[in-house]
Amino acid sequence: MNIIPFPERAQWPALLARPVLEAKDIEARVQPVLEQVKNEGDAGIKALALKFDKIELTDLAFSEKDIAEAGNRLDDTLKAAIGQAYENIYKFHKGQLQAPEKVETMPGVTCWRKSVGIEKVGIYIPGGSAPLFSTVLMLGIPAQIAGCKEIVLCTPSDHPAILYAAKLVGVTKAFRIGGAQAIAAMAYGTESVPKVYKIFGPGNQYVTTAKMLVSKEGVAIDMPAGPSEVAIYADDTALPCFVAADLLSQAEHGADSQVLLVSTSKKLLGSVNIALAEQLEALPRKELAAQAMANSKAILVETDEEAIEMLNEYAAEHLILSIAHAEEVTEKIYNAGSIFLGNYTPESCGDYASGTNHTLPTNGYARAYSGVSVDSFVKKITVQHITEEGIRNIGPTVEAMAAAESLDAHKNAVSIRLKNLL
Amino acid sequence: MNIIPFPERAQWPALLARPVLEAKDIEARVQPVLEQVKNEGDAGIKALALKFDKIELTDLAFSEKDIAEAGNRLDDTLKAAIGQAYENIYKFHKGQLQAPEKVETMPGVTCWRKSVGIEKVGIYIPGGSAPLFSTVLMLGIPAQIAGCKEIVLCTPSDHPAILYAAKLVGVTKAFRIGGAQAIAAMAYGTESVPKVYKIFGPGNQYVTTAKMLVSKEGVAIDMPAGPSEVAIYADDTALPCFVAADLLSQAEHGADSQVLLVSTSKKLLGSVNIALAEQLEALPRKELAAQAMANSKAILVETDEEAIEMLNEYAAEHLILSIAHAEEVTEKIYNAGSIFLGNYTPESCGDYASGTNHTLPTNGYARAYSGVSVDSFVKKITVQHITEEGIRNIGPTVEAMAAAESLDAHKNAVSIRLKNLL
Repeated sequence: MNIIPFPERAQWPALLARPVLEAKDIEARVQPVLEQVKNEGDAGIKALALKFDKIELTDLAFSEKDIAEAGNRLDDTLKAAIGQAYENIYKFHKGQLQAPEKVETMPGVTCWRKSVGIEKVGIYIPGGSAPLFSTVLMLGIPAQIAGCKEIVLCTPSDHPAILYAAKLVGVTKAFRIGGAQAIAAMAYGTESVPKVYKIFGPGNQYVTTAKMLVSKEGVAIDMPAGPSEVAIYADDTALPCFVAADLLSQAEHGADSQVLLVSTSKKLLGSVNIALAEQLEALPRKELAAQAMANSKAILVETDEEAIEMLNEYAAEHLILSIAHAEEVTEKIYNAGSIFLGNYTPESCGDYASGTNHTLPTNGYARAYSGVSVDSFVKKITVQHITEEGIRNIGPTVEAMAAAESLDAHKNAVSIRLKNLL
Repeated sequence: MNIIPFPERAQWPALLARPVLEAKDIEARVQPVLEQVKNEGDAGIKALALKFDKIELTDLAFSEKDIAEAGNRLDDTLKAAIGQAYENIYKFHKGQLQAPEKVETMPGVTCWRKSVGIEKVGIYIPGGSAPLFSTVLMLGIPAQIAGCKEIVLCTPSDHPAILYAAKLVGVTKAFRIGGAQAIAAMAYGTESVPKVYKIFGPGNQYVTTAKMLVSKEGVAIDMPAGPSEVAIYADDTALPCFVAADLLSQAEHGADSQVLLVSTSKKLLGSVNIALAEQLEALPRKELAAQAMANSKAILVETDEEAIEMLNEYAAEHLILSIAHAEEVTEKIYNAGSIFLGNYTPESCGDYASGTNHTLPTNGYARAYSGVSVDSFVKKITVQHITEEGIRNIGPTVEAMAAAESLDAHKNAVSIRLKNLL
């Protein structure tokens, strides 16, 4: 890694900047795909699969048998691991459901919120070399806990672990559809694919652009997307070989992965570089990882305060605090997706099985967005009930405010009730 | 209202459809405004105010004095009303803050979420005939509870009630900027206006289009917007004059307001129409309201079940249940923004002072979106801590899953730790 010693405050924005993606060209290529699926439905999806992926799709849907029997094609170790991950993720997300709590804001005026699962949701899982069955768990489990009635899955992969995870989380329909077509199918609905109200999941630039475009038409999406990233804050209590391993586990995602190391210890940065060179050699994906590491930065700072300020400015998707007093420092972090504390909490545990969600805000979006949780799969509907006593209490307030906003009919809706109670 | 008796299921989508807005033209007009503010900053804002609003802006910012003394320009009744509304809204929203709760998902693996206010948020309040100081409360109070450090307000209105409310909710900076320029100023930042991470608030089509456009660039927004709407479900326990008053309080928002009445009682629908004619005459905004009512629909259905199904399909922003057993029926409603129960809970109480938020999903977005709440102003950051015992417990699960996803460096980040513990 390039070690940058004590950069001035003015250099930070450039050091912490993410690569800018030009979306316009991709939008122009994705829009016709959306239109074709909207207009031609299933036939459009099949035509596009043939055109882009040279695949002749006969059945769009996976059969019940495909899903029921997927487990038979997995070895027991993997099935047990998926089962353990399911349990941990379920346990952590279950606690996120909020029970309605009635609040009497003034005598006779009672308000509450009820959480209701979004009726129909869609999950996209990309194909490619890594079959992301873990993402099926991360999106499916909160959907299941939220009580979503229809959970639709689209994926171009037929890896049995994806279908096995789909069965565990209660996916109601699964389809062999990949790319922007899949997003269009779930956004508009086709003869086979149900239209859903919110779409979740990762994907390449075509998929993420398709999600942004359908979100403009009112279909909700999980969050805007960018390349995955990790920031590590390490001091001399950190083990350099652990830090190196964590940096590489981010870097192997792809050449565009964002990797940042911050430390007050020059010694630590040097040792990490040595460990990195050693570990990189042994990696099957070493070329990808090496490219990402070439763009990475190791920043040496003067003080703890400076490091914290820099990390808040960066707003990392994953933030590893390999430092003494990690939990205290956590209190000072206000921009991050998910935080990993101490020497024995590698990011990969959160990626798979600690219980937290791995669908997290990238690209600095952690300044305004949260990772996926049960919240992402529910609507919170407010309810209010006012008694005769209550309208007597609150009525004059509402009348005065409505009058001041020149909304006479709003005022009248109260006045007519007060008169009726005279 | 046009009474539509017993429509077939197949007719529902057309009956419940919202007007389709063509956004393309407006986008083409808004984009250059955004660019100008991005490139020219304060000077761009001033040039645009002169061009579009014929206003020569000297000071963009309201002074501390403007804000501190706004209360002196209000009568005591209105100040007391605003104070009461503040108290009720604060009380209801305060309960929405969630304390972190640690969950040990397996021995030695602990996960939690901490809520942190979004550091910088922006609130837009339109000008026009109705000075929406109530919206300052509805957006500012949850921002205040969330602990947002910078709360920026832009409004072309200088109504003292807006500035008075701004002071109450702790707005940190307020600007005399209206229209798409205001959204651009808060999205990109200028010499005077701080760049914010999330923008809230209502506006005309230019403002809402500007919000959609900046959201594509990664600035979060509250939710997509559409014309305001109410659906009322009433039976023979409802008072026709109350129902009519509630319909009109929605209709006075503008000719594009969406107003829907559903009932199993033909008698009720007839009586409401008589009350409507009577009340409409007395309204100062009667022309606007009459136009909205001309597009409204009163639908007669056979059964309670059919009514509930129809209301869930419509997914109203505001849903008034003026029926017997309203609270029971609430349990069956899964698509709505906010629900009002019984004869003495008019929508206008929720609009101003019951305690619930009035920034709610329109246009059917209630299928996937919630109204604004404290949730809208916080990020929930997940945190995890794994002990040596914990990594021994969870390690093999993560290794097996990472290997199956062909992510060797992810696996290695765990293996290297397990080896170290041997």
